[in-house]
Amino acid sequence: MSKMALGINLSFCVKRWVTPDLWAPLVRDRLGLDLVQFSFDLVDPMWPDGVLQDLAGELRAVPGEYGVEIHSAFIGLAHYTFNQLLHPDPRVRDYAESWLARAYRFAAEAGIGRVGGPLGAIASRIDSREPESLSEADYNDLVTRMRRLAGEALKAGLRELYVEPTPLRRECPWTIAQAGRMMADVAGTPVPWRLCPDWGHATFEPLYGRYRASMEDWLTELSPHIGMVHIQQTDFQYDRHWDFTEAGAVDPEAARDALRHAGVGDRPVFLEVFYPFERDDRSVLDAVAASVTILKGAFG
Amino acid sequence: MSKMALGINLSFCVKRWVTPDLWAPLVRDRLGLDLVQFSFDLVDPMWPDGVLQDLAGELRAVPGEYGVEIHSAFIGLAHYTFNQLLHPDPRVRDYAESWLARAYRFAAEAGIGRVGGPLGAIASRIDSREPESLSEADYNDLVTRMRRLAGEALKAGLRELYVEPTPLRRECPWTIAQAGRMMADVAGTPVPWRLCPDWGHATFEPLYGRYRASMEDWLTELSPHIGMVHIQQTDFQYDRHWDFTEAGAVDPEAARDALRHAGVGDRPVFLEVFYPFERDDRSVLDAVAASVTILKGAFG
Repeated sequence: MSKMALGINLSFCVKRWVTPDLWAPLVRDRLGLDLVQFSFDLVDPMWPDGVLQDLAGELRAVPGEYGVEIHSAFIGLAHYTFNQLLHPDPRVRDYAESWLARAYRFAAEAGIGRVGGPLGAIASRIDSREPESLSEADYNDLVTRMRRLAGEALKAGLRELYVEPTPLRRECPWTIAQAGRMMADVAGTPVPWRLCPDWGHATFEPLYGRYRASMEDWLTELSPHIGMVHIQQTDFQYDRHWDFTEAGAVDPEAARDALRHAGVGDRPVFLEVFYPFERDDRSVLDAVAASVTILKGAFG
Repeated sequence: MSKMALGINLSFCVKRWVTPDLWAPLVRDRLGLDLVQFSFDLVDPMWPDGVLQDLAGELRAVPGEYGVEIHSAFIGLAHYTFNQLLHPDPRVRDYAESWLARAYRFAAEAGIGRVGGPLGAIASRIDSREPESLSEADYNDLVTRMRRLAGEALKAGLRELYVEPTPLRRECPWTIAQAGRMMADVAGTPVPWRLCPDWGHATFEPLYGRYRASMEDWLTELSPHIGMVHIQQTDFQYDRHWDFTEAGAVDPEAARDALRHAGVGDRPVFLEVFYPFERDDRSVLDAVAASVTILKGAFG
């Protein structure tokens, strides 16, 4: 079988190795990888234009010097903290839309052709009962914004946009059916929307139930729409984003087989791991390096 | 002994009960509290002026209708994700400074007199060796910005600014000595800078060592500078921000005695707990309510 494309999301660099002169040599020399996914936790698209221009220039130049390619840029923890395109105030949704348009322009200027992430969350109710899905009004507003954003992506010069499904009833899509419907509803946009399922999202048992929490189902049923995949170690009890030095329920060789069996073995797989801010740098690097070695054993 | 002031940071509301018409009734009716600390995870000070004006108006009006007072506003997860005032690029430091100035104006307009949080983090090194402290140049730049920010706070109409020490060598202050030096170096600003120690920061054993990780030392040695305290349940192995339904090492009655013994029993104590985004609303509310009941038993 042919080698699969393995890369790493720069989530492990957040507030640590924040500039390409810091992370590119680590990716090449410590991890032995040549493919990364940039994180908007390293650059906030709302920073002033002049700053963004210079940082985009660095991203266009420096990683290549280390033989590292940036495949895509994804929303990180900071922006995911907000309700984004589904905030109760439509003006805050507008701001989230303009945030994404700026993110697209920054990515394009940095030579990154794909941008993605989760889309947003509706607010919770006082009675703490979570509806099964968005209202039709909220869903239609979201799809309208996605179609408009594809126009912004075309203007910026991007080639693909990505939705990352998340395991929350207040976000969208959280089910396979919702993801399929959304892909149909945004079909034909000038820049295509595709899906990035995450191993720790699809397997979250408290939401889906033990027998329905299955990454295999997502991969198989949505395969034509899947452009890339996030992998992490997790116990299926939370969206852990552990690395593979932790004891969890994800077996890298079984994951590889599932990707091939679903016919998406040619799509890149990105390790996405988060660490407590207070964990020391050396132990983070050691753990990421050990995880990449484990994953290479399965995917390499 | 007199009752101590117990409040709650709105961290448990992030991306859930994001507007005061949602969280104020929960704070009064489910938690039985009348004191909160607002979180900038609920409102980003970079949102457009018109939006901020309306949201500030709601904050000035709605919580009071429920008998809930907003004591202060603190930086949350989203802004803490970035290097803030210590980013390697001085222009990003400038942006973080303007972010804070906008946060001050928003808080003042919302009728909130105190703003605080962690200050920033220097980047990590490629060799992953962490220096014991900031360079003198970085430290002096930070103090210059803090003094300038106190002028912004005066213009906005605030009455106190807060530094929250964090348990990272790349942030400042992380030791009692650094915190004391910083308080001396910003003494006399038009709006005073004070400290908000956190129970899970001072007790982080992997950084301080088992026998030096002590909240009692922070409280006793820095008591004149301490204006409020963050409490959480934690195991001293990470900065957990668990609630008090979790098994941890913090005993609420011992915490109360430590505060009184250090002479800071008259300062308000805020529970600050974070939950995985994917945890369901009902279990979050139940756990927060149970924690508040436990803390009231000690502090009430």
